[in-house]
Amino acid sequence: MKCEIISVGTELLLGDIVNTNAQYLSKSLADLGFDVMFQATVGDNENRLTQCLDQAFSRSEMVIATGGLGPTPDDITKEVCAKYFDMQLEENEETKRDLLKFFNHKNTTMPKSNLKQALLPKGSIMLKNDNGTAPGCILEKDGKTIVILPGPPYEMKPMFEDKVVPYIKKYSSFVIKSHTIRSFGIGESLMAEKTADLLECDNPTVAPYAKRGEALLRVSAKAENEQEAEKMMQSVIEDIKSRLGGVIYGIDEANLENAVVKLLKDKGLSVALAESCTAGLVAKRITDVSGASDVFHCGVVSYANEIKHKILGVSLDTLAEVGAVSEEVAKQMALGVWKVSGSSIGASISGIAGPNSDDSEKPVGLAYLAVTNGEKTVVKKIMSGRSSGSDCRDYNRHIFSSNVLNEIRLFALEL
Amino acid sequence: MKCEIISVGTELLLGDIVNTNAQYLSKSLADLGFDVMFQATVGDNENRLTQCLDQAFSRSEMVIATGGLGPTPDDITKEVCAKYFDMQLEENEETKRDLLKFFNHKNTTMPKSNLKQALLPKGSIMLKNDNGTAPGCILEKDGKTIVILPGPPYEMKPMFEDKVVPYIKKYSSFVIKSHTIRSFGIGESLMAEKTADLLECDNPTVAPYAKRGEALLRVSAKAENEQEAEKMMQSVIEDIKSRLGGVIYGIDEANLENAVVKLLKDKGLSVALAESCTAGLVAKRITDVSGASDVFHCGVVSYANEIKHKILGVSLDTLAEVGAVSEEVAKQMALGVWKVSGSSIGASISGIAGPNSDDSEKPVGLAYLAVTNGEKTVVKKIMSGRSSGSDCRDYNRHIFSSNVLNEIRLFALEL
Repeated sequence: MKCEIISVGTELLLGDIVNTNAQYLSKSLADLGFDVMFQATVGDNENRLTQCLDQAFSRSEMVIATGGLGPTPDDITKEVCAKYFDMQLEENEETKRDLLKFFNHKNTTMPKSNLKQALLPKGSIMLKNDNGTAPGCILEKDGKTIVILPGPPYEMKPMFEDKVVPYIKKYSSFVIKSHTIRSFGIGESLMAEKTADLLECDNPTVAPYAKRGEALLRVSAKAENEQEAEKMMQSVIEDIKSRLGGVIYGIDEANLENAVVKLLKDKGLSVALAESCTAGLVAKRITDVSGASDVFHCGVVSYANEIKHKILGVSLDTLAEVGAVSEEVAKQMALGVWKVSGSSIGASISGIAGPNSDDSEKPVGLAYLAVTNGEKTVVKKIMSGRSSGSDCRDYNRHIFSSNVLNEIRLFALEL
Repeated sequence: MKCEIISVGTELLLGDIVNTNAQYLSKSLADLGFDVMFQATVGDNENRLTQCLDQAFSRSEMVIATGGLGPTPDDITKEVCAKYFDMQLEENEETKRDLLKFFNHKNTTMPKSNLKQALLPKGSIMLKNDNGTAPGCILEKDGKTIVILPGPPYEMKPMFEDKVVPYIKKYSSFVIKSHTIRSFGIGESLMAEKTADLLECDNPTVAPYAKRGEALLRVSAKAENEQEAEKMMQSVIEDIKSRLGGVIYGIDEANLENAVVKLLKDKGLSVALAESCTAGLVAKRITDVSGASDVFHCGVVSYANEIKHKILGVSLDTLAEVGAVSEEVAKQMALGVWKVSGSSIGASISGIAGPNSDDSEKPVGLAYLAVTNGEKTVVKKIMSGRSSGSDCRDYNRHIFSSNVLNEIRLFALEL
């Protein structure tokens, strides 16, 4: 089925935000077997949006529209689409109840303007918004379908995945299924070399991606149904596993932190963190995982040297002799937090994220990390390869934190 | 002048890449005073690209097209645009010389296919590519203009800035300048109500946006020159400031954490953090700001109760009586980290991010935060309004951390 995406929002035309929704929807629709031939972006304007709908339906059967569902008068997507299909708007009782509940939970009165969000085209299918106040909806008429979704990605994505995909699946005659093999500690080009022959295959296809220090392989199969597609991928995935080995941290795993929390849970272990340059980022990433409290109890962000000494017991002499960014200090930080926390593993990192170096001669992008269980201690030097550029601080902190997570993973695997 | 952006590339329609070019061009064109009414994305296909050009020129005078200038046969943007304006392609000597020089420098022979890149529409203006092999060009006919640019952003942006802007400036008789007023602690609808009359204004315009707990107002003015535009906005901005008052944390400020670090630096203050539910996120956000080490030295992620007691000195009796998520514990955590760190301000947060509650009857989305300087302590209860949904944990942690940052800001303002 042919399908088009219309992104609605003056902020997109002014360039205030990047349109990540169009990318996400295009990718998801392609995976579902839909042909996306055009994407359009238009402002919150009745005439121009109607013109876009006209163009889209002159060549496609389905339109996914995002944005313009807010409570303010300039949000008109629902109104314009309803008019386009000659449908009336009516108050949706369930949505009104949800809205009142939301504001009640916040202990505030609902502004009158929010009631507008409870209006839906008569005869449309309501899509409940689990992450915001604006519901979406699906309108159908004469073989044409409009799916209306909210603009904020964290509201749009779950609504599309949980509610739209199950509904529109019937319009596609084949499926594309994929698995992503995620690894850390191998470059994209080395991974591509090791799997060169597989990258040439047609169905299933194997495609390499790099993502901030991680190397991913996406295996995709096109088939009549999910079972068939799964069967086609199985041997390829086994083959890749045997070629790449231990650098793989998960298949279809959301990220490194999920893999770490799962592994620690499985092994009945806990970890405590002493962070300097990453300053809470490793703790943040671990506790992004729901249920992390089973394996994580304590983190110390020792940004200043006196805190490294006072809370973690790092020797002032060591700090003076070799500086905070050193093997020895990383080791003492890990041991210090292991001791103070009573966790089974202590992990630490100290480095220079940039954009400026510390007062020493050490380069931006250098860090030392350590992992210990009191008996055995592993120390590792990291060079991120990034010492300048507008993104350098953010990039280095991310790479450093990923290295800590991966080293905890490798350490725990051996316990 | 009315202007449209056409992004050409099948990889965009498959969702393989995010279209950052459209955002960059929209922003630049808006600032130059062009009206961008539509953006379109289309594959490398002659019929569909021609259709897009037809649509665009039925309502606008200028099209900026990006992508499809590569050496492979599927790259056809230049060819289709030349045909559209009935122009012949001819070899451009300068470009051919540049291409040969480029491959010579790389010590390789130029693949024959690259010669295609030296072909330009006869009568067009060549735009030299300083960062790649594909030149761009400007085509004009009967009052219509097509600007063709390469797809890779690092080739497209400098070409646009250095070569296109000086050329197209003559088509714009005015500039648009904007300022963004950022606030925290007021909902988008309440903000819109307080500024309702201003939102109706024409020039300058005032537009509200919401962004994860923050409410933004964008003030834009259209004038003959920058100075004039700035002058027009001044009184509106002052008016908004007096209406919204203390909820405004910055104008054109990147984010809350930047405002906090700047304020603490200005006042010669430092802050230490005791985080439970946000578990490092506040520390991470503060240290995202380069130079944060001047105002931040220490954070304790006390995810478990025994750590709250052991490192921060929270009373075990209090924990047993009222539980970790309580006013009293937040207060003791803030005082504890203030004491252990020696910082001028201590701030804490303890709450339930979800998706599951703790063992008490307290709801997901509830948190208590405290800010202290030893003498004065402020405690605040937060209800995020989000107690379920796939995004709830992430949302709540973000909202909680923003509340801590904002409360540190308000506290520091009074010191």
